[in-house]
Amino acid sequence: MSQLDRVRDWVSQHDIDVAYISDPKSIEYLTSFASDPVERILGLFVFADQDPFLFAPALEVEAIHDTGWKYPVYGYLDHEHPFEMIAAQIKKGVAAPKKWAVEKNNLTLAHFNAIRGQFPDAHFDQDLTATIQNLRLIKSPAEIAKLEAAGREADFAFQIGFEAVQTGRTEAEVAAELEYALKKKGVMQMSFDTLIQAGAHAAEPHGATDMNKIQNNELVLFDLGTVHQGYISDASRTVAVGKPDDKALDIYKVCLEAQLTAQTKAKPGMIAEDLDKIARDIITKAGYGDYFIHRLGHGMGMGEHEFPSIMAGNKMVLTEGMCFSIEPGIYIPGVAGVRIEDCVHITQNGCEPFTHTSKELTYVG
Amino acid sequence: MSQLDRVRDWVSQHDIDVAYISDPKSIEYLTSFASDPVERILGLFVFADQDPFLFAPALEVEAIHDTGWKYPVYGYLDHEHPFEMIAAQIKKGVAAPKKWAVEKNNLTLAHFNAIRGQFPDAHFDQDLTATIQNLRLIKSPAEIAKLEAAGREADFAFQIGFEAVQTGRTEAEVAAELEYALKKKGVMQMSFDTLIQAGAHAAEPHGATDMNKIQNNELVLFDLGTVHQGYISDASRTVAVGKPDDKALDIYKVCLEAQLTAQTKAKPGMIAEDLDKIARDIITKAGYGDYFIHRLGHGMGMGEHEFPSIMAGNKMVLTEGMCFSIEPGIYIPGVAGVRIEDCVHITQNGCEPFTHTSKELTYVG
Repeated sequence: MSQLDRVRDWVSQHDIDVAYISDPKSIEYLTSFASDPVERILGLFVFADQDPFLFAPALEVEAIHDTGWKYPVYGYLDHEHPFEMIAAQIKKGVAAPKKWAVEKNNLTLAHFNAIRGQFPDAHFDQDLTATIQNLRLIKSPAEIAKLEAAGREADFAFQIGFEAVQTGRTEAEVAAELEYALKKKGVMQMSFDTLIQAGAHAAEPHGATDMNKIQNNELVLFDLGTVHQGYISDASRTVAVGKPDDKALDIYKVCLEAQLTAQTKAKPGMIAEDLDKIARDIITKAGYGDYFIHRLGHGMGMGEHEFPSIMAGNKMVLTEGMCFSIEPGIYIPGVAGVRIEDCVHITQNGCEPFTHTSKELTYVG
Repeated sequence: MSQLDRVRDWVSQHDIDVAYISDPKSIEYLTSFASDPVERILGLFVFADQDPFLFAPALEVEAIHDTGWKYPVYGYLDHEHPFEMIAAQIKKGVAAPKKWAVEKNNLTLAHFNAIRGQFPDAHFDQDLTATIQNLRLIKSPAEIAKLEAAGREADFAFQIGFEAVQTGRTEAEVAAELEYALKKKGVMQMSFDTLIQAGAHAAEPHGATDMNKIQNNELVLFDLGTVHQGYISDASRTVAVGKPDDKALDIYKVCLEAQLTAQTKAKPGMIAEDLDKIARDIITKAGYGDYFIHRLGHGMGMGEHEFPSIMAGNKMVLTEGMCFSIEPGIYIPGVAGVRIEDCVHITQNGCEPFTHTSKELTYVG
């Protein structure tokens, strides 16, 4: 049974008249059609007793046919009224749909009002978000294979990036080298802007790569990933140039212990928040708890914001096929920042990482 | 008066108790703080009679202070409940806010429900979208200067990219070369994935750069842009390798005439849809109307989806300081695709482009 058929099943079981899927990532997952429509309208409409259809900008219609999509697709031109056209198509199959399900974590209030305006008597209480997130939660062997391929690309990027590190070179130059090597191999898309941060700059966990020059005797943080056939990699390593001071080395040691311990202990049956606690306790005990200011990890697959979130408060039980990051970080403003991250998938007995670059402190430059 | 003060004025004039700004681009525009919070919560709250505040993930707080933001910022940790915390802060200033304004084109239904749940007696009818879009619509000289700088980066990218074109090289390699050259100069962020499409591949207006090899006697389409201090460039050129056939050359000639004519005629006082029609009529008259399947242009500035949209149905009057693309395209499936694009700003008497790479058909390779 395809994942789209599972959505249809869910629609049928919940007596939904129309399920409106608006998140481009959900649509890619269910149809293999990848697109970022920006402010244009892209929607997948699923029904219990009739075929689904896609509604898309006219300039996407050709590409949708190319994916092998076997159901109708309706295109619209920029000056047309997409929600009127959607309503007309729906009414051909269901004269007066009452019960709708929408992706509440994606649908904007403006689009919600637009579709509700077409169906003033309908109810929009049902949320599709969790249904689709749960479908995406357990990865199939085919999906794991794509995530492994993306992981190999990230390992290759680390190799090139580490070789590119030199005192006096900018963070930007190192990022340029590794992305160039990837693009020449046909890896066209990074999963996010490559992050290279040297020295105290790495203490800004959401800073950006810039023209900051790499100095001797400091740590350099890499956080990068690629997209392989719609599936991402995401990994972090922190490497040493020269002889970083004892404080920096101590942070590294503690962060590494937290990362390795969590990765060793992750297995089916464990509660998500307990895994966060395993890593956090190690960092807290070493005195750096206040400097680990984010969750241990995020679910991943086609993107970086899937289930399961590895954080306090999440009671989800880890199960074979779940994929997430294990990425403790210690950021001491003005001093140094360390983050070490693999994304893993839960196996029958434990977990396996998608990236295999050594996590022992590597001296480069 | 700062743009944030203008929002405050609007809030005051409309008797709004709380304006909740959720779009990261709007927040960047109003605060200079740039961030993509993904599924985390980032909000700017503006009031008539008290200071605004930012609410952000804890790991962004340091970076917000670094921008010089002079009002309060409240951070939250991943396991905390952001909307409860937001509500608590708001209630310290306004005990029972009734009238809210939100960005309906950005706020998701889930976040809307979360904030409404905290203020069950409030009304959320007012839409901030147009207010902020209208603020962003007319660019200041300082903004124009940033857009010009981004345009120069795009011109540089074309130069490198054209030099990189060779028969037998992949589209991906050409993209790699030009992005490498940009990154080495410290241009870290493209405004979208660089698009290089050779031959019939260019007839997919929303396709992607891939491992397709450039052949002799075909056209190669470039569409690219950079981000300079938060402001983007976006430009397209189509170049020739060898001797493309007469059909391809004819498409180019017609597309160029449409582009040049529209760019020559754009001026203050013109209606947006009339500019679209000027270009469209030329293409239609030449027999290619059915192959020009998108609007003539989009507004731009900090992103590619600002006002004014240059399309049928948009009666907006073009005014000095408005910025948008002029990008006719002709895409004949299986044959060839041509798009020629400059982004321009409306001046006192006409318009000026941000990119200056020649639009005459350039032979490369």
